[in-house]
Amino acid sequence: MTLPEKVEIVEVSPRDGLQMLPGFVPTADKIRLIEMARAAGFKRIEAVSFVSPKHVPQMADAGEIMQSIGDDPNIAEMALALNRKGYRRAIEASVDWICYVTAATETMSSKNANTTVADGIAMTRECIAEAHERGIRVRASIAVCWVCPYEGRVSKDRVLEIAGEMAEAGVDEIAFNDTVGKATPDDVYELCRSARNLLPNQQFAGHFHDTNFTALANIYAALTAGWRIFDSSAGGLGGCPFSPGASGNVATEKVVWMLENMGIETGIDAEKLKALAAFAKSVEAGAKSAAVVG
Amino acid sequence: MTLPEKVEIVEVSPRDGLQMLPGFVPTADKIRLIEMARAAGFKRIEAVSFVSPKHVPQMADAGEIMQSIGDDPNIAEMALALNRKGYRRAIEASVDWICYVTAATETMSSKNANTTVADGIAMTRECIAEAHERGIRVRASIAVCWVCPYEGRVSKDRVLEIAGEMAEAGVDEIAFNDTVGKATPDDVYELCRSARNLLPNQQFAGHFHDTNFTALANIYAALTAGWRIFDSSAGGLGGCPFSPGASGNVATEKVVWMLENMGIETGIDAEKLKALAAFAKSVEAGAKSAAVVG
Repeated sequence: MTLPEKVEIVEVSPRDGLQMLPGFVPTADKIRLIEMARAAGFKRIEAVSFVSPKHVPQMADAGEIMQSIGDDPNIAEMALALNRKGYRRAIEASVDWICYVTAATETMSSKNANTTVADGIAMTRECIAEAHERGIRVRASIAVCWVCPYEGRVSKDRVLEIAGEMAEAGVDEIAFNDTVGKATPDDVYELCRSARNLLPNQQFAGHFHDTNFTALANIYAALTAGWRIFDSSAGGLGGCPFSPGASGNVATEKVVWMLENMGIETGIDAEKLKALAAFAKSVEAGAKSAAVVG
Repeated sequence: MTLPEKVEIVEVSPRDGLQMLPGFVPTADKIRLIEMARAAGFKRIEAVSFVSPKHVPQMADAGEIMQSIGDDPNIAEMALALNRKGYRRAIEASVDWICYVTAATETMSSKNANTTVADGIAMTRECIAEAHERGIRVRASIAVCWVCPYEGRVSKDRVLEIAGEMAEAGVDEIAFNDTVGKATPDDVYELCRSARNLLPNQQFAGHFHDTNFTALANIYAALTAGWRIFDSSAGGLGGCPFSPGASGNVATEKVVWMLENMGIETGIDAEKLKALAAFAKSVEAGAKSAAVVG
């Protein structure tokens, strides 16, 4: 078993961490969260999502946020998209990465993005050339790779098939998401190793939720299968509005503690991360109490 | 990687879970905790410790507890001992298992048991024949196998050396303890695999604290190294009075969730475990508030 010297952690609190909060988080707080993440040393930050403000009002200020934060040439901002319109808005906002979210099951794809998996792949094929021309990289993020809240256990072969089609479409990275936090490390190892064997030149990322406290075990399992990029959210904020039972993303501070104590470099400043996590939690508390008052 | 069909979980809340609580837990509650653990399906329960009531007043009623619970022929009661007197009391109480605790470092051995590691091994050699004659099995539990709060990172070779001597002394099981919850899964895999290679016929157990949220990752790592027996504590109660920075044992309900979802049988009734964890937490809360009042 060879473990890497370095791992990349993608900080997702500004997007995945906030989207489920019931009260609207002030735009200034969202911007501060991104700036604190930049200061803590993250080289990629999931900053916003370009989705319907009707369905996800929390992200209605995505364009304003992207304008305000400006471009830091050393740090990549990633924006989530679920459809052609999202792709378009992300390209126009000149993000560094588009995270296009599809799913491993049709029910999840329909609930989350109101489309089929096949159409998600078709959209990616349509949009990727323009993204690449503009220097924007594209991640295909596959929701519910292990367990779907609607369809139960997910077939490994189906996930690999979708990954294969996304790779063929030319995506720069494929993320496997344990959206509801029900994956176990044996299955994570199995799927991650199979994906690497199938697509040895593809860049992969793991996105684990900590609903059942297995996220660090799952990250370790993915590491032993050769994966080197992981999403996490400061303070453990997050979830998915269209995934019943989903709780927070794995907390960045837990991931950094484990990796650094394994002798794996993350590039993250532990003190600044602590401040980021504290601020993220205060933003979460504020949005929850605002919703109660309002 | 071959994972087992079954794993044995040793429930340690009645001993390891309670010993650090500031207020005295009523004997009746301790007995009820053991009875609830029996009902939930555990086949081995760390019920008490036979240690100095001056140093660990919480366990002053160990003899009374062992008498009250009586012998269930299908369930093994394990009692902790730190010295000859503890061995003697455990033998006289006719426990099923003695858990003799030594340490991987001299400072920890001195702080925890006021003795040297060599003397701990010598004590085990002296006491084991009588224990075996009476049908009592002996576990050698090695504290701070990865990180010591006094001496820092622990040498793998030293742990293997102690394990080798304990195996030679004839112990029925050797437990490796991450007493302060600072082990990482790569090191756990490494040490557990080395121990199995060195002592292929020895029975091993893993004892992990969840201070830094890595306990499930560590259990998974130990599983992949061939280990099949793990300690845990309902509700995550526990710690060590002589290990600065130690927080709770890994919660049994987290371990059972992960293993059962990996398709590994634990024999534990999830509903009864839930009740046990709730009761353990209420006992903890009671002992904490009693200490504040008293």
